[in-house]
Amino acid sequence: MKKKNKKITAGILVIGNEILSGRTIDKNISFLALWLNNSLGIKVSEVRIVPDIENKIIKSVISLSKNYNYVLTTGGIGPTHDDITSKSISKAFKKKYTYHKEAFNILKKYYGDKNFNDPRKKMAKMPKGAKLILNPSSAAPGFIIKNVICLPGVPSILKSMIGNLKKYLKPGLKTYSLTVSVETIESNIAKGLEQTQKRYKKFVDIGSYPFFRLGKIGVAIVLRSESRNRLQSCHKSIIKILKNKKLKVFKGA
Amino acid sequence: MKKKNKKITAGILVIGNEILSGRTIDKNISFLALWLNNSLGIKVSEVRIVPDIENKIIKSVISLSKNYNYVLTTGGIGPTHDDITSKSISKAFKKKYTYHKEAFNILKKYYGDKNFNDPRKKMAKMPKGAKLILNPSSAAPGFIIKNVICLPGVPSILKSMIGNLKKYLKPGLKTYSLTVSVETIESNIAKGLEQTQKRYKKFVDIGSYPFFRLGKIGVAIVLRSESRNRLQSCHKSIIKILKNKKLKVFKGA
Repeated sequence: MKKKNKKITAGILVIGNEILSGRTIDKNISFLALWLNNSLGIKVSEVRIVPDIENKIIKSVISLSKNYNYVLTTGGIGPTHDDITSKSISKAFKKKYTYHKEAFNILKKYYGDKNFNDPRKKMAKMPKGAKLILNPSSAAPGFIIKNVICLPGVPSILKSMIGNLKKYLKPGLKTYSLTVSVETIESNIAKGLEQTQKRYKKFVDIGSYPFFRLGKIGVAIVLRSESRNRLQSCHKSIIKILKNKKLKVFKGA
Repeated sequence: MKKKNKKITAGILVIGNEILSGRTIDKNISFLALWLNNSLGIKVSEVRIVPDIENKIIKSVISLSKNYNYVLTTGGIGPTHDDITSKSISKAFKKKYTYHKEAFNILKKYYGDKNFNDPRKKMAKMPKGAKLILNPSSAAPGFIIKNVICLPGVPSILKSMIGNLKKYLKPGLKTYSLTVSVETIESNIAKGLEQTQKRYKKFVDIGSYPFFRLGKIGVAIVLRSESRNRLQSCHKSIIKILKNKKLKVFKGA
């Protein structure tokens, strides 16, 4: 018999003043969350956004690293003075912050001997013992140390590195999901949803999300489960409740 | 002499499985961050996103409430079983979770006696002693208890309540900011930026953000300061560095 995958969890740590100031809208959280949850069965359980301040990064990394199987950080691994992720994580894990030989060579080759200045060299510095996550778009690699994975903040570069990151992540239980969108308001169906949630307890997670679209008021009922059978049976129960209330289920939902 | 405003900080706590699953892209963080930072001089210092799980909400609220002047939560104050913010925050502060008389009356009037069912009544339950934040778009109020402000997750409703929230927030020092966008790559200007940052230490915060736009590679240099004079003088230094390097500054930047 095939051994079943366990539940695997991840925390995401976004590092950057520009997100906290509101200047930049984060695009990495939802991308990473969808990829981890849907492609790898790794449940994203918490996200934190912190400024470019060493002790804040250290505290958050240590806390997330203890609580979850993986931590993915984004931002702060570039060449400028405000890029302090690698140094902070070295300190968090009491590792020497030093040149990674392979990273150094990759960057040297990429920029050429003559143009390989100090800020560029800085991008090869990381916690001793880190393993590289290669960057096919702009050379400067990310890295993994313990259960912490450091990725860049620029969304297009981050996306390009996902393929090289995959091998370091142990997949978890796949979560199946179904969405029913219905023309109603939440408080009309709240009782039925609550009773169904009680019946399926921890096996199916039922979420209720109101929306306003094209002049219609609706609720998206999202069901998630690690068991396909329980998901189907819960779905049937929900449809029955909606039919009994003579509510209109949106097509394609 | 007018007494100077102090530095005022805030944490944001986003509550909702739908953000962590990646299904829904959060729109409230950047909206609240821009509003707090720019209109009120309240510095957003940390954001957390947690699932609809009571002990996670309690832990995060207590931690953020201790560390910052204000905490703004979004999500989880609707009528369904997965809306557990009010109950969790009552527990966090050891307050009774009970009907708020005024909220109850607002909702009763809004729905009408006949349609005021249990899920709708639930939206009037909050920690004892909470003050209401009125909701002009869909009646169900938010609330403030201690230094924690609870707002809904639906962005359009949240936005409509900002006017009614303002009176509870003490404004802080205004942060001024200037952005210089230049056609270069970060590692070309990293040294100059670092030296300038050292010279302006904690008085001006210099951020460096690479971008790719309309086929151009550039860096947005963002300067932030509570002192207009220091900001201007730092700005001059940066422009000088860029001119010496014969770099092209984008117009309008």
